[in-house]
Amino acid sequence: MGKVVVDISMSLDGFVAGPDPRLEDPLGRGGERLHEWALGLESFRTRHGREGGERGTDSDVLAEASEHIGATIMGRRMFSGGFGPGPWEDDPNPDGWWGEEPPFRVPVFVLTHHARETVEMRGGTSFIFVTDGFESALEEARAAAEGQDISVAGGAEAVQEALAAGCVDEIQVHIAPLLLGGGTPLFGDGQLKQLEPIRVIDSPAVTHVKYRVRT
Amino acid sequence: MGKVVVDISMSLDGFVAGPDPRLEDPLGRGGERLHEWALGLESFRTRHGREGGERGTDSDVLAEASEHIGATIMGRRMFSGGFGPGPWEDDPNPDGWWGEEPPFRVPVFVLTHHARETVEMRGGTSFIFVTDGFESALEEARAAAEGQDISVAGGAEAVQEALAAGCVDEIQVHIAPLLLGGGTPLFGDGQLKQLEPIRVIDSPAVTHVKYRVRT
Repeated sequence: MGKVVVDISMSLDGFVAGPDPRLEDPLGRGGERLHEWALGLESFRTRHGREGGERGTDSDVLAEASEHIGATIMGRRMFSGGFGPGPWEDDPNPDGWWGEEPPFRVPVFVLTHHARETVEMRGGTSFIFVTDGFESALEEARAAAEGQDISVAGGAEAVQEALAAGCVDEIQVHIAPLLLGGGTPLFGDGQLKQLEPIRVIDSPAVTHVKYRVRT
Repeated sequence: MGKVVVDISMSLDGFVAGPDPRLEDPLGRGGERLHEWALGLESFRTRHGREGGERGTDSDVLAEASEHIGATIMGRRMFSGGFGPGPWEDDPNPDGWWGEEPPFRVPVFVLTHHARETVEMRGGTSFIFVTDGFESALEEARAAAEGQDISVAGGAEAVQEALAAGCVDEIQVHIAPLLLGGGTPLFGDGQLKQLEPIRVIDSPAVTHVKYRVRT
């Protein structure tokens, strides 16, 4: 059976979005800087259907993170680009804000309160909408992944549900070198959990720290 | 002129103490685990006037952190072991909770609302009490440090005041491999600040990440 992994960028002060996230600015004030380290990389561009980009350690870490992923789970806001729990007919991005060829290239299970049909995108990504909670999404994702790993992509709420359910095997945090000073904390209130560092890779742009979650 | 450096242990979820810190448990639930990586090290034991201990990377990083420090600044709670802003006559640890030979071995400027005479300890540590705010403490610390670096040792409030004053040159965070799930956040609400990674050193016990603060 594949592992359940969390792979996410976070500021040193623990946020995955800055203050005041809104539809027009879903990552909040300063939040785009969390992902600056990734945007120019070859592996990032390849996933997004583009050519070129920088090679090197950061590109390799990013490429590796999607290598064994057979399915992804994400929250509704991450799918829609900041739109909250409202009905689909009000959503400005009903097919997601990830473009016509999203970078996931596997089945993506979206946590939502509003049922709808699966949406097939180009490049191997399909969005499947799950209305009965994280553990149900995980069960569907496991079936779809056929023994490969499941990625919990975010946002913070989905990661916290996964941790609370006790089913996360590994966490890789890409610690972006900034203090956002407020915003959406990745981990939020939760239980004491011991981690075990597996690997640290650093560059001038970011620190990649991978942990095993002790059960 | 010496640098102003912050050097502190933090959980991956950003806390320097766990939930419910109290006088009998000043680091809160699980908070002692933040410092587990350090306790058995040779350099830790030497600073505390003891012999023996483990050598290696973590011990070297800890030794280095105090090498060029000429003065230290800390908050009242860190001095007293969890006692808040009350008057000294009510403080159960009026001479601090650091023992007769505290590990600082330089002048330590304690931020407090209650004036009192300097306390001289064994081994080179003196505690000087500053009642007119962080910037005044920094001025006194600079004079005492005679060109060496100033360490802002904690707690979170003192670090946040130093950052808000815009006078921190470097931050070294020892990221302990655990989620505390709540407690005292190191950085709290603040302003957006860009950091520049200078150095990352990791071991199975802890990840040491050092940043320059961009002004």
